[in-house]
Amino acid sequence: MSHDVSPLATPFPALPAIAGATPHIVRAGYKDWGRCDLTYVELAEGTSVAGVFTRNICCSSEVDLGRANIGQGLARALVVNAGNSNAFTGYRGREAVEQIMDQVAAHLGAPREQVFVSSTGVIGVPLPKDKARDGVTAALASPECGWEDAARTIGTTDTFPKGATATAIVGDKTVTLSAIIKGSGMIAPDMATMLGYIFTDCAIAPAYLQELLGVAADETFNCITVDSDTSTSDTILAFATGKAGNQRINCGGCPGADAFAAALRDVCRQMAHLVVKDGEGAQKFIAITVTGAASDASARKVGLAIANSPLVKTAIAGEDANWGRVVMAVGKAGEPANRDTLSIGFGGIWTAKDGQPVADYDETPVAEHLKGHDISIAVDLGIGDGRATVWTCDLTHGYISINADYRS
Amino acid sequence: MSHDVSPLATPFPALPAIAGATPHIVRAGYKDWGRCDLTYVELAEGTSVAGVFTRNICCSSEVDLGRANIGQGLARALVVNAGNSNAFTGYRGREAVEQIMDQVAAHLGAPREQVFVSSTGVIGVPLPKDKARDGVTAALASPECGWEDAARTIGTTDTFPKGATATAIVGDKTVTLSAIIKGSGMIAPDMATMLGYIFTDCAIAPAYLQELLGVAADETFNCITVDSDTSTSDTILAFATGKAGNQRINCGGCPGADAFAAALRDVCRQMAHLVVKDGEGAQKFIAITVTGAASDASARKVGLAIANSPLVKTAIAGEDANWGRVVMAVGKAGEPANRDTLSIGFGGIWTAKDGQPVADYDETPVAEHLKGHDISIAVDLGIGDGRATVWTCDLTHGYISINADYRS
Repeated sequence: MSHDVSPLATPFPALPAIAGATPHIVRAGYKDWGRCDLTYVELAEGTSVAGVFTRNICCSSEVDLGRANIGQGLARALVVNAGNSNAFTGYRGREAVEQIMDQVAAHLGAPREQVFVSSTGVIGVPLPKDKARDGVTAALASPECGWEDAARTIGTTDTFPKGATATAIVGDKTVTLSAIIKGSGMIAPDMATMLGYIFTDCAIAPAYLQELLGVAADETFNCITVDSDTSTSDTILAFATGKAGNQRINCGGCPGADAFAAALRDVCRQMAHLVVKDGEGAQKFIAITVTGAASDASARKVGLAIANSPLVKTAIAGEDANWGRVVMAVGKAGEPANRDTLSIGFGGIWTAKDGQPVADYDETPVAEHLKGHDISIAVDLGIGDGRATVWTCDLTHGYISINADYRS
Repeated sequence: MSHDVSPLATPFPALPAIAGATPHIVRAGYKDWGRCDLTYVELAEGTSVAGVFTRNICCSSEVDLGRANIGQGLARALVVNAGNSNAFTGYRGREAVEQIMDQVAAHLGAPREQVFVSSTGVIGVPLPKDKARDGVTAALASPECGWEDAARTIGTTDTFPKGATATAIVGDKTVTLSAIIKGSGMIAPDMATMLGYIFTDCAIAPAYLQELLGVAADETFNCITVDSDTSTSDTILAFATGKAGNQRINCGGCPGADAFAAALRDVCRQMAHLVVKDGEGAQKFIAITVTGAASDASARKVGLAIANSPLVKTAIAGEDANWGRVVMAVGKAGEPANRDTLSIGFGGIWTAKDGQPVADYDETPVAEHLKGHDISIAVDLGIGDGRATVWTCDLTHGYISINADYRS
């Protein structure tokens, strides 16, 4: 955590322990640093697992193997390596992941496909097998740690540790979700990626957990962007140990299914926002709400075109209500829109309505809004009922400094 | 031209006069500045015209009217306003453009659809009709000027005037092309856009000129990017006065058609490169060549994904041969690719081959290459015969300063 803490950082919340999920951290020494860099979470037998993975074609072996194994639905362990992404390392990288899976599986007496591995850090350097072996050996013998320790250990260029929690009433039981995430830019200076892990004591069938996670990710992780770049390692995994003793949720009609789905979505949204708030160089958290679109999917595409526009992001960094740049971004999105029904606002105040500047527009309250940390942009396309909200951060000198002002 | 001159600037070339195309400049006073800001080019009767326009849905009335009138194929005049883009200004903006067209058409005794108008500058402020009327009146009475004067007058945030020229042998005649262009970022701080004009004395049918311009634009203007943002006003127009006396080119089989097509493409490539070299904050000119793709179109999409990646652009700014970021950009492009056949190089030296780092990779010559102004990145996907080259610039503190470090 070498850079200044993000001005948008929030304190680490009190994350409840989750029965059946015990975190451990050790120092494998993947980089020449003094900190812990290997996280191991042991999971109770029968833990359900679901996951969503990067769509980047050049993904790591960790992602390949995780995607291949997620369908069987059970997990006994999670291992996260920080400091080396092991991406683009060919067969040697794959062997290192398989070694970790075999070592943990042998220790637990579990099938190796129930061991999930993630790695984050430099691309193109095979994960050193000896360090991984010694690290895992140490982790298996180490004492349980807290979630904040684990959140720090999975981090790389993150400037603060990130956690989220929620509860839901399922039948006559309360189930708890505790989650940790790392990420700071979609992929960062040789290091970084978005890795998130949700642990819950809820009893839930893997297939239904996968369905709910897919929906939640679509509305949260797939609605954030820092710099439009997509990591080769992005992974979100949800583990459900079933220790809460609730009647197992198998489908949408089960008691508590809606409550659990809402809690899962809430945790995912918290996690997604934390990544944006640690976006490289971020000074402002920007929520962009698009309404009146041809469809919800179309609204999201328009929202992401705005959120990914360097000119919009630099305007917000400059605290400039430059709605002309928003017009430009709407127009380039390639989605149905009509210049003459387009309206744009900042902080709840319309600056342009129906394709023209608002006649009596008073910039004073808008300028005041833009001085804050939390910025809202509203866009109404005026052609349908589709809507979406996406989140991003501004583009500042800090981003350039982090990503350009160094030599490898 | 308020910013420091781009380190990639080149001297304005000696642009030949084109018989039948006479430029004039005046000060309409669209902004409170001392410089000329209205360019008027009178064209001989019978001048063929062709054009390509922005695909941005929120385009200006100038683009709407230009697109509507290009099909009739004839032009008598071009008017370019600098300092106000007149985009997103509703019916008032459209009236201002029609007033200019009517005024010039009446003066020339020509149909108004033969008068083409472009505007560049702030979005959302209707072009003032009185200033436009007085400016055009002055322009119609003003003496002829040189192409460099015209190139400066169409500019806004450009840091240097931009011109290009080429010749072609058509039958027993030499035809000449002289072109001017402005642009510095796809769209810039309230000002800017890409506007380019090609003048030639070649006799050529409008429909065939349109065909050739479309092909040339596709290989040049559509292969550059500064910041992935698309202006609401982008326009390229080609005017052919026919004064060279060559046998009129009507189709691909006509004598000299291939030579003229090559000269047109050459001029378009020069113009496109000049815009990149004046990219906001640019310190490096980057050529990205993608080979081994599934198709040429696929190669271009991969190339543009790399060229638009903030992480690749900041790596080049930092003179860092960060091929891991290129891997990431290839993988996110959404085009056919295979991680295990992917190769990446800088300055003619492969750093990664077939999905793995090159074993005996020596970074010294690559580091030396990255210190220069002209950077080349090679990507071979290893799956087909498709290829494309795209051009961009790096992403620097200068871009942030130009676009964020001010208040409106």
